[in-house]
Amino acid sequence: MDDNIYIFGHQNPDTDSIASAIVYAEFKKKLGGKGYTPARLGEANREAKFALDYFGAEMPMFLEDGAGKKVILVDHNELSQSVANRDKSQILEVIDHHRINDFETSNPLYMHLEPVGCTCTILYKKFIENGLPISEQLAGLMLSAILSDTLALTSPTCTEEDIMAVRILSGLAQIDDYESYAEEMLKAGSSLEGYSIEEILNIDSKNFTFGETKGMVAQVLTYDIDSVFTIKNELIEAMNKKLEEIDGTLAIFMLTDIGENSSTLLITGSSAHIAHKAFGGNIGEDVYLEGVVSRKKQIVPQLTEAVLGK
Amino acid sequence: MDDNIYIFGHQNPDTDSIASAIVYAEFKKKLGGKGYTPARLGEANREAKFALDYFGAEMPMFLEDGAGKKVILVDHNELSQSVANRDKSQILEVIDHHRINDFETSNPLYMHLEPVGCTCTILYKKFIENGLPISEQLAGLMLSAILSDTLALTSPTCTEEDIMAVRILSGLAQIDDYESYAEEMLKAGSSLEGYSIEEILNIDSKNFTFGETKGMVAQVLTYDIDSVFTIKNELIEAMNKKLEEIDGTLAIFMLTDIGENSSTLLITGSSAHIAHKAFGGNIGEDVYLEGVVSRKKQIVPQLTEAVLGK
Repeated sequence: MDDNIYIFGHQNPDTDSIASAIVYAEFKKKLGGKGYTPARLGEANREAKFALDYFGAEMPMFLEDGAGKKVILVDHNELSQSVANRDKSQILEVIDHHRINDFETSNPLYMHLEPVGCTCTILYKKFIENGLPISEQLAGLMLSAILSDTLALTSPTCTEEDIMAVRILSGLAQIDDYESYAEEMLKAGSSLEGYSIEEILNIDSKNFTFGETKGMVAQVLTYDIDSVFTIKNELIEAMNKKLEEIDGTLAIFMLTDIGENSSTLLITGSSAHIAHKAFGGNIGEDVYLEGVVSRKKQIVPQLTEAVLGK
Repeated sequence: MDDNIYIFGHQNPDTDSIASAIVYAEFKKKLGGKGYTPARLGEANREAKFALDYFGAEMPMFLEDGAGKKVILVDHNELSQSVANRDKSQILEVIDHHRINDFETSNPLYMHLEPVGCTCTILYKKFIENGLPISEQLAGLMLSAILSDTLALTSPTCTEEDIMAVRILSGLAQIDDYESYAEEMLKAGSSLEGYSIEEILNIDSKNFTFGETKGMVAQVLTYDIDSVFTIKNELIEAMNKKLEEIDGTLAIFMLTDIGENSSTLLITGSSAHIAHKAFGGNIGEDVYLEGVVSRKKQIVPQLTEAVLGK
């Protein structure tokens, strides 16, 4: 019997998923808990690696299978974004800032969700509420996650609580100018150099099930959107391949221009018309969206409504 | 446009569902919030009425339809137990102590679940954490809800946090002896006087769908189980009628003897054998279960497993 309690974020882990796992395990240890083990479900993205390097933190272990394990989910709740065999694991807790979808349990559990920009904002508040010390390293990890999820506090998902957390955490992390740290981190994270087409698609790809419609919505954040457009056809090909693998009918790739604060959607699949219904444009066209940078707030809800025909 | 935010518990409201709605609305008001309106989805049971009378609290308003409304769910999350047209409402928050089932949102939300015996135990902690004053009336309502859900701290769902809350709240509510208050409240609540057969069945009846099997599990808590047995045949008849209405194949009525700390199951329907597989006895027989009082912990999980053939 495995006595560990594995704490992990979603597949294709980003900075928040990696940082939340580390930070929440530390929180539990500081409260006297034993066996809390930060984990990840895949290779961390470049931005997360940059943040861990910057603050000298260790990469969490890779967890392949949830069967028979006690687990705590951070930064996600949907089955399709979680560990393999999660239905055979025992979910003790969920700490998250996403909508609830495709999630159920057979027993009551501890669950703490808030509609803030980042899971680490919730965790930061838990440290403060419990009067627990926050080391420079932990502060740096939480700061990085919040700056990442909120695009340096500019995303529409950003709340006053995220801003307050950044103000306090940047002091604790000895980061004098959080804006230049954010730019350095986002640039390091958004470099697509050396990635294969499949890797670019998988940097931050999430599968979804809306009613009967299955699909994926991937996002890439970049300062150099022109170079992404040069490989557009290959990306669409990879999206179609992915749809076949997951037996889905709608793939959206959200190319977000960090500097311009806008996104272009590549759309493919036999249910493409649903995405065009939600975001405009005609089948076969890309859709340019001024001021749209948040998948969670500006893409997923609109898509859900279009799929469900509301 | 309705600017109110309606706070309500499940259908067939019990003491926790009614008290949580009132208490959480007060919590929000104390934090400076406006428009928070406690509500109920049906007639409160006798026990809830007793508790409200005892502490001089007002019955929440009846809410018939959730369409177009902003809502906060307390003490439940499942769609089938919630307000009509909930899918057309905007769910802002959930405070609950049940498993997650048949629940999803299109947007991120505030959600606070803990595996404790009662929603009011979570709310009590929120008052304490925020340093907010708890009036005698609010303390009395929370105390009543916790004593109700945990059967005066004897149910297997009862945790140390529920016990601690009762110790503190009984002082604040000026209840010197919580055990005798609990007995008085439970007795008042379990009186079946003047109820029709259908009303007795509906005091606390929940529908379920386990895989392909649909049915209902009702419970009645009483100090006078003998008088319930005198109407056994009529109850089974009413159960069969209910099964026809919901197109179900298994009805269980859990007659819980509060004084004896035991339950007798009346079982009917074409899937009765599944219940007997889980709880013993033969088709056509009642099943007596020593020490069994919690539907949530001692009946539903076992039944789920038997139905799913695990």
